[in-house]
Amino acid sequence: MSKSKVDGLPVLDADAAVPCCPPLTAGELSPEDAERMAVMFKALSDPVRLRLFSKVASHAGGEACVCDISDVGVSQPTVSHHLKKLKDAGLLTSERRGTWVYYQVAPSVVAAMAAMLDLRT
Amino acid sequence: MSKSKVDGLPVLDADAAVPCCPPLTAGELSPEDAERMAVMFKALSDPVRLRLFSKVASHAGGEACVCDISDVGVSQPTVSHHLKKLKDAGLLTSERRGTWVYYQVAPSVVAAMAAMLDLRT
Repeated sequence: MSKSKVDGLPVLDADAAVPCCPPLTAGELSPEDAERMAVMFKALSDPVRLRLFSKVASHAGGEACVCDISDVGVSQPTVSHHLKKLKDAGLLTSERRGTWVYYQVAPSVVAAMAAMLDLRT
Repeated sequence: MSKSKVDGLPVLDADAAVPCCPPLTAGELSPEDAERMAVMFKALSDPVRLRLFSKVASHAGGEACVCDISDVGVSQPTVSHHLKKLKDAGLLTSERRGTWVYYQVAPSVVAAMAAMLDLRT
């Protein structure tokens, strides 16, 4: 079953969220690409989500257990909620191993955002 | 009068919004830097704002008159509202010349966002 049909909600699959966009200076974004990229920027538009994302990105080995990154001053359910939003936007992937879920940054998606904002090219 | 006091709203001044942050892989964002960067990502979290921003960024001469970029399928007041949000977040600057207001990308702010998302370093 396609992830996009889970609960009837629009969910970006990490693999589907391939880099789409040239640098902003190269030309106008299409409405479709703008919709897609806005979802990713929205995922980083909350300070707690941004901190959680930076904790995963900077963690040793490129991945972090939820047990490693929960000290952001909000409850565990709120941490889980924010991690789900980052996953749904395609910015994080996750894998359950034993008791814990481990999160990894989706490098191609983050690289697409960085490339779009690169004004040097 | 300080821009931050206009209407009592917190407004980032483009000059004050200097690059703050190392790449995400280099270490955790501080709560203060996360608050600051989240404002910028939030400005790009709307598809219409993202299209307006890309129109300014890709326009000849690096700036665009509001008259050049209004064809995004929303009303003129809505365009003005979105451009103000981009300005308030420090991503655009503007200058009135004669009848029209011209918008420019704030390159140091956009470069700071791109640098933060650069996972290669």
